[in-house]
Amino acid sequence: MKPCGRLGKLAKYLIHPQYQGHKYLSTSAVKFSKMAGIEAGKKAAAIAAVNNHIKDGQVVGIGSGTTVVSAVQRIAERVKQENLKLVCIPTSFQAKQLILENNLVLGTLEQYPELDVAIDGADEVDAALTCIKGGGGCLTQEKIVANCAKEFIVIADERKDVSVLGTNWKGGVPIEVVDLAYRPVMLQLERLLRGQATLRMAVKKMGPVVTDNGNFLIDWVFDKPGDWAHINTTLKMIPGVVETGLFVNMAKKAYFGRSSGEVHTREPTHT
Amino acid sequence: MKPCGRLGKLAKYLIHPQYQGHKYLSTSAVKFSKMAGIEAGKKAAAIAAVNNHIKDGQVVGIGSGTTVVSAVQRIAERVKQENLKLVCIPTSFQAKQLILENNLVLGTLEQYPELDVAIDGADEVDAALTCIKGGGGCLTQEKIVANCAKEFIVIADERKDVSVLGTNWKGGVPIEVVDLAYRPVMLQLERLLRGQATLRMAVKKMGPVVTDNGNFLIDWVFDKPGDWAHINTTLKMIPGVVETGLFVNMAKKAYFGRSSGEVHTREPTHT
Amino acid sequence: MKPCGRLGKLAKYLIHPQYQGHKYLSTSAVKFSKMAGIEAGKKAAAIAAVNNHIKDGQVVGIGSGTTVVSAVQRIAERVKQENLKLVCIPTSFQAKQLILENNLVLGTLEQYPELDVAIDGADEVDAALTCIKGGGGCLTQEKIVANCAKEFIVIADERKDVSVLGTNWKGGVPIEVVDLAYRPVMLQLERLLRGQATLRMAVKKMGPVVTDNGNFLIDWVFDKPGDWAHINTTLKMIPGVVETGLFVNMAKKAYFGRSSGEVHTREPTHT
Amino acid sequence: MKPCGRLGKLAKYLIHPQYQGHKYLSTSAVKFSKMAGIEAGKKAAAIAAVNNHIKDGQVVGIGSGTTVVSAVQRIAERVKQENLKLVCIPTSFQAKQLILENNLVLGTLEQYPELDVAIDGADEVDAALTCIKGGGGCLTQEKIVANCAKEFIVIADERKDVSVLGTNWKGGVPIEVVDLAYRPVMLQLERLLRGQATLRMAVKKMGPVVTDNGNFLIDWVFDKPGDWAHINTTLKMIPGVVETGLFVNMAKKAYFGRSSGEVHTREPTHT
Repeated sequence: MKPCGRLGKLAKYLIHPQYQGHKYLSTSAVKFSKMAGIEAGKKAAAIAAVNNHIKDGQVVGIGSGTTVVSAVQRIAERVKQENLKLVCIPTSFQAKQLILENNLVLGTLEQYPELDVAIDGADEVDAALTCIKGGGGCLTQEKIVANCAKEFIVIADERKDVSVLGTNWKGGVPIEVVDLAYRPVMLQLERLLRGQATLRMAVKKMGPVVTDNGNFLIDWVFDKPGDWAHINTTLKMIPGVVETGLFVNMAKKAYFGRSSGEVHTREPTHT
Repeated sequence: MKPCGRLGKLAKYLIHPQYQGHKYLSTSAVKFSKMAGIEAGKKAAAIAAVNNHIKDGQVVGIGSGTTVVSAVQRIAERVKQENLKLVCIPTSFQAKQLILENNLVLGTLEQYPELDVAIDGADEVDAALTCIKGGGGCLTQEKIVANCAKEFIVIADERKDVSVLGTNWKGGVPIEVVDLAYRPVMLQLERLLRGQATLRMAVKKMGPVVTDNGNFLIDWVFDKPGDWAHINTTLKMIPGVVETGLFVNMAKKAYFGRSSGEVHTREPTHT
Repeated sequence: MKPCGRLGKLAKYLIHPQYQGHKYLSTSAVKFSKMAGIEAGKKAAAIAAVNNHIKDGQVVGIGSGTTVVSAVQRIAERVKQENLKLVCIPTSFQAKQLILENNLVLGTLEQYPELDVAIDGADEVDAALTCIKGGGGCLTQEKIVANCAKEFIVIADERKDVSVLGTNWKGGVPIEVVDLAYRPVMLQLERLLRGQATLRMAVKKMGPVVTDNGNFLIDWVFDKPGDWAHINTTLKMIPGVVETGLFVNMAKKAYFGRSSGEVHTREPTHT
Repeated sequence: MKPCGRLGKLAKYLIHPQYQGHKYLSTSAVKFSKMAGIEAGKKAAAIAAVNNHIKDGQVVGIGSGTTVVSAVQRIAERVKQENLKLVCIPTSFQAKQLILENNLVLGTLEQYPELDVAIDGADEVDAALTCIKGGGGCLTQEKIVANCAKEFIVIADERKDVSVLGTNWKGGVPIEVVDLAYRPVMLQLERLLRGQATLRMAVKKMGPVVTDNGNFLIDWVFDKPGDWAHINTTLKMIPGVVETGLFVNMAKKAYFGRSSGEVHTREPTHT
């Protein structure tokens, strides 16, 4: 395609998200070398997942977060080298940016309501591959996209690899709610499930974080792990809840990268 | 309170909604006398419910729709005559207008996350008091408010009084969805529950109806009635669904008004 | 591109908007033959404009409304016959649907903030090519897209071709407002510019029309025509006003189609 | 009023905003004692303004930000001591919280489209009382409320008291934009007015800050001060711009508090 009009002039643009919402134990104490190891782990997991799951002609869901950056770069590499035809469906503003910056073909769920595969990160992943997602506030779009995909693949560094949710991730379960319902939802969920619910406040504006869907976020710190399928249903059935950050029985496989560059994979264990 | 500033000058304002979304059998054929009878029935039901359930000092949820107009007028009468102290929580823009026009005290769920009683209409009510609501597109806020109330009371004319949902109401179950998910949700719900899903299109603007929460509406016409609790959970658990117009196990009592002015009440039958 | 995955299965889908917002004099009295003539006029104008203004390699803004349907069909024909490379930027949900249904390449303002040309309809067009737009409620996105284009071309049937705004179109100037500001904006604009402002109410939901941007619409019926540039600035500077349906000094050329199939073009007259 | 129902049980609730968006020169270097002085200045300004401008029976606009906290506390004190009848109209989620926490009467612009007075902070105030507002992202609602008030009063600490905008405040002019227009607006405003425009990114979610109106924020760092009335009009007339953080010819009086507790007032100088 050799366009002669404005098409040829599409300038490169890049927006660096400042998202710093990580809530891992002792994050502030980690040394630079440890962070570099974590980055190496993320990258290794992302590359392995893209190598194994992306095939020509697919519609691919693109997750959000730092680990996904490496995945999209690897997809772009493979598209160029192998001349793959792919359409990429974003799970967030950031994912859309990544797709465009890497010159991949952007699609929407309206055009492609069924996806072959979706690749996304997670805040924590337990033995059954139940995930907590939504530290970055994109849980609703992420779950919609994951749910449209035949295969949902999780990529993460080794800190997220736990047997029981809540081991390392202390941010609780993010829950997206209709704005006018935030207080009754907080009361009702604490009554139903105990724990502690807080409205997520913004840093770069006054008042609460507003999601890309125009809703509020509640972070629910649970007392102890439980039957996540049941908890997820209990949460979502509360009127005013739009979506929860619990991804239960969704992930088909998880790739965890270690600082060494090794990648460990897991499929759901059913006890 | 005798305000000396701008407070004294609050002008009366009235906005007449043009909502004409009724989808009852042969609505176009009904004669004027029949419509007058229906109005008489609505009014009788509204007055009876307000007389029986509104008490001094309550926080009251105010539903939406034509039947609720009579309920709010009766509340305003009783507030004046009996000097009741009430706070009214609206379920929609229209409900808010009704509260203000009738000089009642307006509150929000943020201030009053727990209500004593909520009174609302319905598109249809079956033997178990399961309701279809949302013909007017306010289902999410209506369900949030109803769910915060200790007592949820339904008022309607006799057309809505059926043993099985879908008898008179042909508009299906309204479902509020995150806009970007409307197509996958339609596909998935037809796959899970059969029937026919359509995106509700607007008349006074191009494109789909946008709800007061910024979402889209799907009208799902079901093939046959079923286990509504199960159907409601199945629908709401689809990622992208914000809320459904099925109100299951919520109504404590229903008031149905007849053209004669008689009011018939029902409580849930549990089979 | 011969995709082997899900890409090959993109089903055709079509949504028929029910939009019926036309507010022309004696619309209800027009006979079928007259309506057919109007359709012929729209189509002729659309074809002429597409033939004259669309060139290979362009980024093209796609307007909203019934006249635009013919324009998009003609674009699709030319793309196929002449193997044109185009990217199409929609001005509304309906425009996006038209682009997808006609298998054109969909782009966004984020990817292509500069357009070569935009083609759109109008509710009325005066001698200076000042347009009233927004009967369909998409005025904000339409003005954003038109303003990004080097050339903004208007297509319409002959009823919209007037020397003075308000001649045939009686719906007033649509104005998009932040929801919480609708009442002060109505008061202030009547004080500043007289006329009559009304909040546009919905038909398929209770309460006001909500735009695709989550805002309300005010229809301002003016007393008499005036200095539209000044009026437009006065309106938009009112805090709470998001955009107005007055397009002043934007259109480069207008194509008006007659029932006969003849097309009359005009460029702005500057008095 | 002695309610006997749920009304009597309204629990106290308090949400501490984490907003840290201040962008003043060398903020990071200020010592604790200096911060305490700034707080003393804010408080003194707030108290003086409330003492001078709040009268019985008024409808009062309540601004946003840290300085306003002291103003609302002083209003609550006076309401209790002097038995004032006031209705308070918030400019943000935070303002609404402040009103409720201080047991003041909450109203809306829909009920009270005309205000007697509005009191708000600012990021910077020049000799003509032109303000930059919107560091906290509430500029649109703040300007709507200020514009509805007969008197708009600014309260601030002495750092905000400058002769020329941009002296201490380095965050630029916040501009609220329709989300899909952010890139063309950035391009066009740099072309029209030079300077540097950036999309404000969030910290507690991925991607850009979303305002309470569902829009994005652009921070425009200008090259040099100019004719602010002209600049404000130029900015707002760009299609896609919802509102700007420039408040020109709006403030009737400014109260600047010093660390000493002294308050310096200014009215607009017209050169």
